[in-house]
Amino acid sequence: MRFATFRLQGGPSWGLIKGDEAVDLGAVLSARYPDLKSVIAASALAEVAAATASAPCHPLSAVTWLPVVPNPDKILCVGLNYEMHRKETGRAEVENPTIFARFANSQIGHGADIVRPRISHELDFEGELAIVIGKPGRYIAREDAFAHVAGYACYNDGSVRDFQRHTHQFTPGKNFPDTGAFGPWMMTPDELGPLPDLRLQTRVNGQVVQDATFEQMIFDIPMIIAYCSSFTRLEPGDVIATGTPGGVGAKRNPPLWLKPGDVVEVEIDRLGILRNGIADEA
Amino acid sequence: MRFATFRLQGGPSWGLIKGDEAVDLGAVLSARYPDLKSVIAASALAEVAAATASAPCHPLSAVTWLPVVPNPDKILCVGLNYEMHRKETGRAEVENPTIFARFANSQIGHGADIVRPRISHELDFEGELAIVIGKPGRYIAREDAFAHVAGYACYNDGSVRDFQRHTHQFTPGKNFPDTGAFGPWMMTPDELGPLPDLRLQTRVNGQVVQDATFEQMIFDIPMIIAYCSSFTRLEPGDVIATGTPGGVGAKRNPPLWLKPGDVVEVEIDRLGILRNGIADEA
Repeated sequence: MRFATFRLQGGPSWGLIKGDEAVDLGAVLSARYPDLKSVIAASALAEVAAATASAPCHPLSAVTWLPVVPNPDKILCVGLNYEMHRKETGRAEVENPTIFARFANSQIGHGADIVRPRISHELDFEGELAIVIGKPGRYIAREDAFAHVAGYACYNDGSVRDFQRHTHQFTPGKNFPDTGAFGPWMMTPDELGPLPDLRLQTRVNGQVVQDATFEQMIFDIPMIIAYCSSFTRLEPGDVIATGTPGGVGAKRNPPLWLKPGDVVEVEIDRLGILRNGIADEA
Repeated sequence: MRFATFRLQGGPSWGLIKGDEAVDLGAVLSARYPDLKSVIAASALAEVAAATASAPCHPLSAVTWLPVVPNPDKILCVGLNYEMHRKETGRAEVENPTIFARFANSQIGHGADIVRPRISHELDFEGELAIVIGKPGRYIAREDAFAHVAGYACYNDGSVRDFQRHTHQFTPGKNFPDTGAFGPWMMTPDELGPLPDLRLQTRVNGQVVQDATFEQMIFDIPMIIAYCSSFTRLEPGDVIATGTPGGVGAKRNPPLWLKPGDVVEVEIDRLGILRNGIADEA
């Protein structure tokens, strides 16, 4: 099943994506479930999907996509989780995942423009697999980790590199408004199937710039969930962006900075394509 | 004026602190303002304070304190913002503030125990001045910064040092549950008065371990607000913890780790005392 958050003529809503149609479940269930996070928190994804018969359907062309979870309590991002990217950044090997944070108000949905801020030209892409947490938990064991996943989505952890390098902490470069693209939808694990062989590709204007499979992750998904839950309680709707492969624009020679008019795609096998244009800040 | 969030017999509420009494404004205004953040967002602090006549009062002894803003969209923390602390950590001088993030679910109020997690013994204190943002904004100029402040509070940015050092990113060590103490109240700028000469002291079991005035900050409050608002839109209720002076437990010889039964106080002149015990995780 694919779940999404979107805007229709009647305002923001959420629902199920079936083929080329969006089923507007929010239109019939919003009193009980005002947003997708509340459905996830109630472990009610299957229940609401069964209620689609009475919900209005819209062609995807009528949908304005919002971030899959627009209002997560937390967005945890893993840095340097593919060997090629770790090497291109010159960072040492470490025994634990590198974790930094993104705030919810930096996110956009599929199809929206990633915004190049007027105070930097060093806007870069980072194609990633995002985990959406379902069941909350602390001290989650690796062997139990997958039971805490509500779904997976494509993520573009758009980064403003000069701000990321202002100090040793990444936060400023990872939180510019309209830089964290998340979508188009979240796919439930049963539909996505086994992860290791899945391929992630990032393309800029059609040219492949990142290309990896998830078996190349340094810290796999159970390890990431276990580690994050050791220092914070994971809540329903929390997002973990699992890191980007090698090939980022900043480490190319010459660097490949995103500029207005560019189109970036993050594609993950079976899961879908997240596509965003680039625009200058208004 | 001093505003706080607290729990009474009737559940969580918010209100004004007048002398030794808590005025339960939530009891009469919660339909319009469900929490202190919503009052701040409506720029209604003065308005609600004028409505105290009809609100029930309670002695402070009947109050269980909650974090001043339990549900901020963002908690931005400044690292290494006093020269003595920068030197004790061996970090280089930088031209911009060092910013990392804390999540709301790591916070506690005045009087609650800071929890030493069962997976670490390296629990440390960091006494700080916290800014609560009132008026939202992006690209706030330094000369306009104080107009965006709703109030100030004491903060203890409790840190788990081994997790903070797992990698170069501080996030894990700064987000353990029940480590970010915030309170007892927020004081409006008109009541607090000029900041530079105010002294911050942190005491462990009555012994002074940190002692500084705010004029010793490397980046002053207008600079911090201006910088943070350059990469993120600041929202009403957002919290900025402005950094800790020298004297942290980790840099003492031998290190001074917090242990169950200890009491930590963060006192700021005119503003108040934030006091928390230490307890082992249940």
